[in-house]
Amino acid sequence: MQEKMGGVTAAKGFTAIGVAAGIKKDRKDMAMIYSEAECRVAGTFTTNVVKAAPVKWDQGIVYGNKTAHGVVVNSGVANACTGAEGLGYCKETAEKAAELFGIEANQVLVASTGVIGQQIPIDKIKAGVEKMKPLLSASAAAGTLAAEAIMTTDTVEKEIAVEVELGGKIVTVGGMSKGSGMIHPNMCTMLSFVTTDACIAQELLQKALSASVVDSYNMISVDGDTSTNDTCLLLANAQAGNPEITEENEDYTKFVEALNYVNTYLAKKMAADGEGATKLFEVKVIGAENKEQAVTLAKSVVTSNLTKAAIYGRDANWGRILCAMGYSGAQFDPEKVDLYFESAAGKLKIIENGVSTGYSEEEATKILSEDAVTAIADVKLGDACATAWGCDLTYDYVKINADYRS
Amino acid sequence: MQEKMGGVTAAKGFTAIGVAAGIKKDRKDMAMIYSEAECRVAGTFTTNVVKAAPVKWDQGIVYGNKTAHGVVVNSGVANACTGAEGLGYCKETAEKAAELFGIEANQVLVASTGVIGQQIPIDKIKAGVEKMKPLLSASAAAGTLAAEAIMTTDTVEKEIAVEVELGGKIVTVGGMSKGSGMIHPNMCTMLSFVTTDACIAQELLQKALSASVVDSYNMISVDGDTSTNDTCLLLANAQAGNPEITEENEDYTKFVEALNYVNTYLAKKMAADGEGATKLFEVKVIGAENKEQAVTLAKSVVTSNLTKAAIYGRDANWGRILCAMGYSGAQFDPEKVDLYFESAAGKLKIIENGVSTGYSEEEATKILSEDAVTAIADVKLGDACATAWGCDLTYDYVKINADYRS
Repeated sequence: MQEKMGGVTAAKGFTAIGVAAGIKKDRKDMAMIYSEAECRVAGTFTTNVVKAAPVKWDQGIVYGNKTAHGVVVNSGVANACTGAEGLGYCKETAEKAAELFGIEANQVLVASTGVIGQQIPIDKIKAGVEKMKPLLSASAAAGTLAAEAIMTTDTVEKEIAVEVELGGKIVTVGGMSKGSGMIHPNMCTMLSFVTTDACIAQELLQKALSASVVDSYNMISVDGDTSTNDTCLLLANAQAGNPEITEENEDYTKFVEALNYVNTYLAKKMAADGEGATKLFEVKVIGAENKEQAVTLAKSVVTSNLTKAAIYGRDANWGRILCAMGYSGAQFDPEKVDLYFESAAGKLKIIENGVSTGYSEEEATKILSEDAVTAIADVKLGDACATAWGCDLTYDYVKINADYRS
Repeated sequence: MQEKMGGVTAAKGFTAIGVAAGIKKDRKDMAMIYSEAECRVAGTFTTNVVKAAPVKWDQGIVYGNKTAHGVVVNSGVANACTGAEGLGYCKETAEKAAELFGIEANQVLVASTGVIGQQIPIDKIKAGVEKMKPLLSASAAAGTLAAEAIMTTDTVEKEIAVEVELGGKIVTVGGMSKGSGMIHPNMCTMLSFVTTDACIAQELLQKALSASVVDSYNMISVDGDTSTNDTCLLLANAQAGNPEITEENEDYTKFVEALNYVNTYLAKKMAADGEGATKLFEVKVIGAENKEQAVTLAKSVVTSNLTKAAIYGRDANWGRILCAMGYSGAQFDPEKVDLYFESAAGKLKIIENGVSTGYSEEEATKILSEDAVTAIADVKLGDACATAWGCDLTYDYVKINADYRS
């Protein structure tokens, strides 16, 4: 896949910006993405029964008019558990932007991330929208400012763009996302925004996104806590000039590949930047009877606190991995399982048919000392596989979350 | 309920001991419980697909002959993921004890806890059994030595005994258990042994135990990891002289109350002594539509890493609690929920109908600074309720589990 500079502003016709609107102390806390050309919109949202107000607002658009010109995002306050007042503030935010741009309020998506239970400071938010409008830019730098502004406990901004040729035209897909706690997406991750200049029918846009989140955001976990705010939005403004994709043809396949690449990249970035994390921890289950079994097993391991603490300690404590597979709910034969650890430092078979190979602990620790480590479990029942991404569990995860509000 | 001194040796006719058999360095690591009179046996075991060898051995007895004279326990090595060799060592251990006591091997239960994946040092185990036989004693002190010998990362031994009058006779129920990591029982907890001198039909003994674990051990969580070794055994030797309980009459009810008291006490002790824990965290869900809903909601909150880290930080971060209820899988109306924090320092309403009451953060922190804190969620849908127990998530949990094997 051909990567290129930039994130949400990489696709033609998209502008963005990030600013400090005074919600957080001395940090950027608002971002905007805007396309002059109307976009077809697809979205996936948290399955949490407790849905933040912006999730409800965006669902109204994604399931309703299905078009928008942009997104207003704030960090610092999640606008979750805020009742009718909170939902009213989503509307006020959208109305403010709509007034400035001369569009309808139902063409403005909103998203929030931060502390649950507080009302957003609506005056600061509206002033932030006014401040951002004249600063919107199609530059890569503006995209990065937006990616920085949506960060909460993230340590790095997360953005990527790729291009593919569709019908003789260069089509770009770019995105940004933020983690990095309360990450155990079930439908989509915390916040992720993807823009594209592809011309594609809205139903196919939604279909491509819904399929893509299953193998990307839905396969990561930082702490097992599925957020109230998980939102993934995909905006397509058709500015690339490609022939409209109206069926699942070759162009659709290429578009899906580009979208998957962007989403998987952003998902892995989020996992690696999990709160307090020192490592990306990848879990591959191979040889499964079916995809569902592979997914269940991989997610159970990547979510296991004991396994994650062992990975932090560079301890090849494989019993915890087999144990986590065992309580996952999936059926398999523990006495058939082979397990490997792999990283830039090498690959090592740890257990064969459920028992230790008598591997070298020293070599295992060397492999587990890299920044990205993979556990591969072969359950030898069939051909299905799945990959999940998470991170290690560290002192800093506890520190960050014991002190979060103070 | 009338508590009395002692644990597994409190009931008539039971002896016990704990010794250092050289499996661990300079610590007690083997325990035995023995009754000269044959016991009817009930048991509940882990639902993990990966079952340790001793679980398989004990299931053979509990589902087979249903009688035993005692249990041999070791800590240090779990005898899990050890294949046919590991199961063979269970048999050898039982045979050794059987030979010494002149009983059948299938009347000796075994249990192990510790590191997964290593074979138990069978010669040390057999020598340990020989060493323990002449030391067995009915004293309370001997029961405590046994309770100490089964500890791994536990910081305190856990034992209790109670008495009830059944048919004019004093009947005793006593028990011991150990945690304190890989605790998220699904059927039963890590290791728990309960003895009673009650005379009760085996089917009723099993029925009472199976019902009791649902509201005790199955309602605690330290880290969400369901162990491969979870075992709860109940031995009844009929030495109290009470008329045999053969139906669910008043005596049965009183026996069940005593058993529940012992199991709930031991379960809460395990939660409070969770690895690295500084606090017992109790979650009560009230006003639920049915028991299942209440259980699902309570367990989800008590298992949430983010909530547990906030409890460690004495932070009334109620949004995390509502969030954890939201992703539990249970349906409810977030905008109806009232939430309270309660401890020895007082009780405070934090949210009403899903939004903040504007409570005093200072007062909330005071309440959360106690050693045992309770969150009460009223979902206002019906009359069902459930209580779950867990602990806070601390730096020490990570430390213990990053270093466990070294």
